[in-house]
Amino acid sequence: MPEIYVYAVEGRTSEQKRGLMKDITDAVVKNFGTDPENVTVQIIEAPKDSKAKGGIPFSER
Amino acid sequence: MPEIYVYAVEGRTSEQKRGLMKDITDAVVKNFGTDPENVTVQIIEAPKDSKAKGGIPFSER
Amino acid sequence: MPEIYVYAVEGRTSEQKRGLMKDITDAVVKNFGTDPENVTVQIIEAPKDSKAKGGIPFSER
Amino acid sequence: MPEIYVYAVEGRTSEQKRGLMKDITDAVVKNFGTDPENVTVQIIEAPKDSKAKGGIPFSER
Amino acid sequence: MPEIYVYAVEGRTSEQKRGLMKDITDAVVKNFGTDPENVTVQIIEAPKDSKAKGGIPFSER
Amino acid sequence: MPEIYVYAVEGRTSEQKRGLMKDITDAVVKNFGTDPENVTVQIIEAPKDSKAKGGIPFSER
Repeated sequence: MPEIYVYAVEGRTSEQKRGLMKDITDAVVKNFGTDPENVTVQIIEAPKDSKAKGGIPFSER
Repeated sequence: MPEIYVYAVEGRTSEQKRGLMKDITDAVVKNFGTDPENVTVQIIEAPKDSKAKGGIPFSER
Repeated sequence: MPEIYVYAVEGRTSEQKRGLMKDITDAVVKNFGTDPENVTVQIIEAPKDSKAKGGIPFSER
Repeated sequence: MPEIYVYAVEGRTSEQKRGLMKDITDAVVKNFGTDPENVTVQIIEAPKDSKAKGGIPFSER
Repeated sequence: MPEIYVYAVEGRTSEQKRGLMKDITDAVVKNFGTDPENVTVQIIEAPKDSKAKGGIPFSER
Repeated sequence: MPEIYVYAVEGRTSEQKRGLMKDITDAVVKNFGTDPENVTVQIIEAPKDSKAKGGIPFSER
């Protein structure tokens, strides 16, 4: 509480994902005054043929 | 803006997914008057043992 | 199955929303071969102070 | 209607997932009076480097 | 962990929602062996003109 | 791309929400190297009777 979900196309490293989840957690603690242990972040990555912008899959952009 | 998410059981081809993401994007442009470059669509596919209808996993239906 | 979710900032009419949900349903039926009665669409609208692009709330853009 | 989504870190067996989806379906039928065939449940599992609690990935907790 | 989301059309009482959230929490504890204090459930209700089945809004079904 | 969703119980001010959305956007830009104009954040707030922890609604905790 709160819970944060990041929807992204695949391709980031574990290091990038760790950094993002840490910084988002810090942002929630700072702005909402939440105990960090109550903050969960999950990244939902899509294969490049399963996410599109402008109607064009990322596998073709 | 807006962003669209499709939750489905696995098993569709890249061609089917491309077609769906294109047609959903067109539907948003037509009805909401959005620039297509502002429309993202992501498909979240579940393995057949991770989605159920009527309490029965798709791996057993 | 599948289920579709549209995340948008508030401000569209019931007529626009009906049109979008109808066209998305048709897109699923056409591309995935689903019975339309198995397709659900839900629109999750945010107040303008609860959605941001580029870090700026829609209430200030 | 309704549709239920469970966000979890990976690592449960098919048997655990079947049991959870069955019990959640029963809970919806009992409390909301829904026909079970109208209830869908999908589990969205994250790799351990893609979910964090307290800013720390489950791959490191 | 895990977190559960229920997407439904509006119209249930606080009593029905309390019962559902309690029973879903119990289902997670039973099947996944989680501490109940680690289970969150959120219900996302849509106005009847913002959810459709078969392409028809619940305001017209 | 990516898109971020924050699920929370109601009760934060517009100022708190603006701050959170700004800081999350900055975190995505820093860690994923994204153009900020491609980052959207939406907060989905639940009434206190529609979110529970440990099976108990926030209206009763």
